[in-house]
Amino acid sequence: MADHQARSGGDERPSGIPAIRWEEPPEGPVLVLLDQTRLPVEEVELVCTDAPALVEAIRSLAVRGAPLLGIAGAYGVALAAARGFDVPEAAQALEAARPTAVNLSVGVRRALAAHEAELARSGEPAAAAGAALAAARALHREDAEASARMAAHGLALLDGLLPGGGHRVLTHCNTGALVSGGEGTAFAVALAAHREGRLRRLWVDETRPLLQGARLTAYEAARNGMAYTLLTDNAAGSLFAAGEVDAVLIGADRIAADGSVANKVGSYPLAVLARHHQVPFIVVAPLTTVDMATADGAAIEVEQRAGFEVTEVMAPQAQVAGAGGGIPVAPLGTQAYNPAFDVTPPELVTAIVTEEGVVSPVTREALAGMCAAATG
Amino acid sequence: MADHQARSGGDERPSGIPAIRWEEPPEGPVLVLLDQTRLPVEEVELVCTDAPALVEAIRSLAVRGAPLLGIAGAYGVALAAARGFDVPEAAQALEAARPTAVNLSVGVRRALAAHEAELARSGEPAAAAGAALAAARALHREDAEASARMAAHGLALLDGLLPGGGHRVLTHCNTGALVSGGEGTAFAVALAAHREGRLRRLWVDETRPLLQGARLTAYEAARNGMAYTLLTDNAAGSLFAAGEVDAVLIGADRIAADGSVANKVGSYPLAVLARHHQVPFIVVAPLTTVDMATADGAAIEVEQRAGFEVTEVMAPQAQVAGAGGGIPVAPLGTQAYNPAFDVTPPELVTAIVTEEGVVSPVTREALAGMCAAATG
Repeated sequence: MADHQARSGGDERPSGIPAIRWEEPPEGPVLVLLDQTRLPVEEVELVCTDAPALVEAIRSLAVRGAPLLGIAGAYGVALAAARGFDVPEAAQALEAARPTAVNLSVGVRRALAAHEAELARSGEPAAAAGAALAAARALHREDAEASARMAAHGLALLDGLLPGGGHRVLTHCNTGALVSGGEGTAFAVALAAHREGRLRRLWVDETRPLLQGARLTAYEAARNGMAYTLLTDNAAGSLFAAGEVDAVLIGADRIAADGSVANKVGSYPLAVLARHHQVPFIVVAPLTTVDMATADGAAIEVEQRAGFEVTEVMAPQAQVAGAGGGIPVAPLGTQAYNPAFDVTPPELVTAIVTEEGVVSPVTREALAGMCAAATG
Repeated sequence: MADHQARSGGDERPSGIPAIRWEEPPEGPVLVLLDQTRLPVEEVELVCTDAPALVEAIRSLAVRGAPLLGIAGAYGVALAAARGFDVPEAAQALEAARPTAVNLSVGVRRALAAHEAELARSGEPAAAAGAALAAARALHREDAEASARMAAHGLALLDGLLPGGGHRVLTHCNTGALVSGGEGTAFAVALAAHREGRLRRLWVDETRPLLQGARLTAYEAARNGMAYTLLTDNAAGSLFAAGEVDAVLIGADRIAADGSVANKVGSYPLAVLARHHQVPFIVVAPLTTVDMATADGAAIEVEQRAGFEVTEVMAPQAQVAGAGGGIPVAPLGTQAYNPAFDVTPPELVTAIVTEEGVVSPVTREALAGMCAAATG
């Protein structure tokens, strides 16, 4: 089950309230999530005491973003183990909560493997639960470190591509501290540029239907003091045409072996615009996002979400009215097409940045080489 | 001043409540508008008794859409004349209400010229007011006729480009009976295809920030029994990639002499996607939208609208909260880039359809030829 608890909102930076944390009160261990569906209006934490609560939090997008989903999945396994639930069953439910981000599955399996190995070794459930938690904590820490390294590699790439400085970067969806154990993926690169005084403007796509850009990226940009401007997704074309975009920086939910990138819906049209205007299109993601078992873009399963996300507008503070809990904006009974992600083929991707370095041009061989070097 | 009056909502088709009508109650003539900001939730009419009320209705988008703005502008001049206001002053205010749609200015000037000519001839203000009204009514009637001719030309073009039938058409913004004295521009073509049994699917872009697609096009499509599906603007890329779009049909707010097309923001990205996927991109607009005095796309003034249209979500039935009367979805103080239109260069436009026929390929010479033939 899950409970909400209000935190003092206000002036802390995003790092003041972590996106996820493990706590051990006297009543037993809990996983505490910053409820991202309530931002930026209020900072409310969601306390999960079991895996089903976490599955629901993942489905409702209270916790979201590929790297963070991996961390959450690992902690979810640890939670089920610590509380004495059926661990393989919990792992299966967590893995199936959302289909596209490979990180979720990677995180779940890592904690599950640690749990099973310790159980086989010692036969002690408590020791096995400890091993699952240690695996989750290691993933959490490694993700923070990976974030810092992605930011450094990404900024070096940006500086190389745009020697003039004064970068004007367009980003889509949310890829900052709210999706990561650290400062994120694409957003972390823009933040590094900002700290070095080389970010002139962060263009923030609002990212319909769930407005992660308006609600979350704008929130993180504001708190970090970055120069940012919000726009509707369809206004990006005007910015490109006016020569106001120097680079596009986005994250990824799954990268196939051929370099095809699944990311938030709206990424592919940006890639086509970027190519039309000869602007670099850069994908920033941890190596755990690369899924060598998925051969190409066509093999990536794209999550289709409920139509009410489109036919209704979600606003945390509004009176609920429609079937999806939002405000209806289309005629009753309107059918909607609502893929959560789209797939950008490798030929439209200028570079993929991971914690291990930069792949450019993006080819199956280069990607395989980076993965082999990292695990070898 | 303007007053609201509720109409019985319910099951009439869009033609049941006209977007605009002139009435002469005992208290004096009025211009009655269907308030488009309240659709699809309620059908409310806005009664304008003077030009300032109409200017406000134009600015707030209660009345909108290039052809309808022309008709409204002409009636506005007639209203000022019939009520004994300063006609040139009213004309000037109306013309300046919104900058991009050339039709507004064309409509205003046509009624003003009729007024001035009659005043010069007879010296009778009442006769001059009658002449202004006659000019507005003629424009209204001509627009309805133009709409039917555009639909026929557009459908013939579509059938020629897509000989297999079963057209799957993507459209943006609203271009139906709500923008026209008749059945509209691009939407009228899709409606003609539907009546002939050749429309398989109308893909309706929601059209952020003001959701004219979700609110108005879905409303018109539903009332006409068309097979339609709503999508966020940024999901169009996925449809193109999946081969689900056979043609794009949009309207225009101004077409420059070189064939550059200013239309609702988000049209240009669709043109780039259409080109990338070799899908026809067709613009449907009356000849009054072609502005030979504007040399090219760079010379088109694009209206920049208030940022709160992006940082807040408008929903007629919600409690108001933000500075713009909507529900805030971004952090307080967020700056937004909010161009109302974008400009598509002629090389990305497959064809321009007017009531006089089809220009394809789109060149300065071909466009000039069509205009000369129409007025010659």
